[in-house]
Amino acid sequence: MQMNPNKDTQLCMSLSGRPGNFGLRFHNYLYEQLGLNFYYKAFSSKDLNGAVGGIRALGIRGCGVSMPFKEACIALVDELDASAAAIQSINTIVNTDGHLKAYNTDYIAIAQLLETHQVPKDSTFALRGSGGMAKAVASALRDGGYANGVIVARNERAGRSLADALGYEWQAELGERRPQMLINVTPIGMTGGPEADQLAFDAEVIAAADTVFDVVAIPSETPLIVRGRAEGKRVITGLEVIAIQALEQFVLYTGVRPTAEQFQAAVAFARS
Amino acid sequence: MQMNPNKDTQLCMSLSGRPGNFGLRFHNYLYEQLGLNFYYKAFSSKDLNGAVGGIRALGIRGCGVSMPFKEACIALVDELDASAAAIQSINTIVNTDGHLKAYNTDYIAIAQLLETHQVPKDSTFALRGSGGMAKAVASALRDGGYANGVIVARNERAGRSLADALGYEWQAELGERRPQMLINVTPIGMTGGPEADQLAFDAEVIAAADTVFDVVAIPSETPLIVRGRAEGKRVITGLEVIAIQALEQFVLYTGVRPTAEQFQAAVAFARS
Repeated sequence: MQMNPNKDTQLCMSLSGRPGNFGLRFHNYLYEQLGLNFYYKAFSSKDLNGAVGGIRALGIRGCGVSMPFKEACIALVDELDASAAAIQSINTIVNTDGHLKAYNTDYIAIAQLLETHQVPKDSTFALRGSGGMAKAVASALRDGGYANGVIVARNERAGRSLADALGYEWQAELGERRPQMLINVTPIGMTGGPEADQLAFDAEVIAAADTVFDVVAIPSETPLIVRGRAEGKRVITGLEVIAIQALEQFVLYTGVRPTAEQFQAAVAFARS
Repeated sequence: MQMNPNKDTQLCMSLSGRPGNFGLRFHNYLYEQLGLNFYYKAFSSKDLNGAVGGIRALGIRGCGVSMPFKEACIALVDELDASAAAIQSINTIVNTDGHLKAYNTDYIAIAQLLETHQVPKDSTFALRGSGGMAKAVASALRDGGYANGVIVARNERAGRSLADALGYEWQAELGERRPQMLINVTPIGMTGGPEADQLAFDAEVIAAADTVFDVVAIPSETPLIVRGRAEGKRVITGLEVIAIQALEQFVLYTGVRPTAEQFQAAVAFARS
């Protein structure tokens, strides 16, 4: 990677419990391709206050925020974008002359994907999960006009709370329902997890659906996605989510929107 | 510059009122040449507490500290190296798992230069200046066994205080003295300053000396150095000071000492 850092180089960063390579490779690749004087660095921290104070004091332009900091960060920023305010969970901080504004580009990415994949608004759906990411996905569905949904979660308190907040039903198990869109927002199918080789929904449920959407990104070809693809369903993958949310961060930090080709090349580079 | 940042890349940085390019070019060049997974970034800040807190919270490995932070930083670190303790002025912070130890590599560089240039220990000297850098230079002289010196400073309080602390004389003007070593630690001869084209010592004083030493680095060929060189004196330049102090920072941060050739190439690159 060709880089010519100088005193005017701007820093962007990520803050997460376990930093990965995707974001930093994605951003640094595009900085180079587009000739932008930026550098992206992945950080971890045990002191969130000190880290966000450092972003402010050092004029770090942007920060991607991952687990376990997405909610705790809210008290430390100056302003919440609508994408973050509704779900009270952030994944992006933009620093403009010391003013920190927080966004949730996961929410933005999911809203975009429902549109670009032309998922009919009257689709019935089941969303499995009840954590922070489930909140972002369910909020994007609600705000996108998808009214007929059920939140499927074994954790009744979290599941009911999420469903009630957005006007959806809650069920511990899917039961006899056969929704048109199936959305997995649990670790089922994730590499290294105890359920890495499992389907997030039963085979006959998948057979009856027309859209499968999995937010798991490692691998993005989860058992759910593989089966949905084999059966000719509309599929939306976790790789699309992390790539588009990173793209929207990039646009927020730099003010520049890469072309579709540059974006695809950056995703390919970031995964390599 | 070839770089392949990943999640394990370590950050080093500088903190100064007006960042320049020398340090970041020097360090980044050597990281690349030696295959070290580091990146160096220049920062400015109006919030020293927040900046040092950020170094700690983000695990930033090292920080070069310039004007106007060299003294204020002392209260914010955990330990002072001998090079910084004696003069109560630091220019380097090394962060080892959250423990911040501060050094003064200007002091270290000056002590080294007096040795490598083989300046006789019984040389009489005059040092012009009474600021923070003058303190570092005078302390290195004292600790190096150079006992016969005079501090020349128009500011009587600062000049006397520095001289008294180290066992030297103070004078407002050099007068009739003709010291063997002349040391300029004032902005005289510095680009952009009001005395850019002036000699820090009178022509006949230079003629009578055998060593001229100027800490001004921009340009390093000050009128004092140019004249000393023309008259065949032993010369020590500000470029040597900033280069060696940067080298010693590099060694403290990375634990790796470049070869003399790598060091010279890095200096040439950093100035280009």
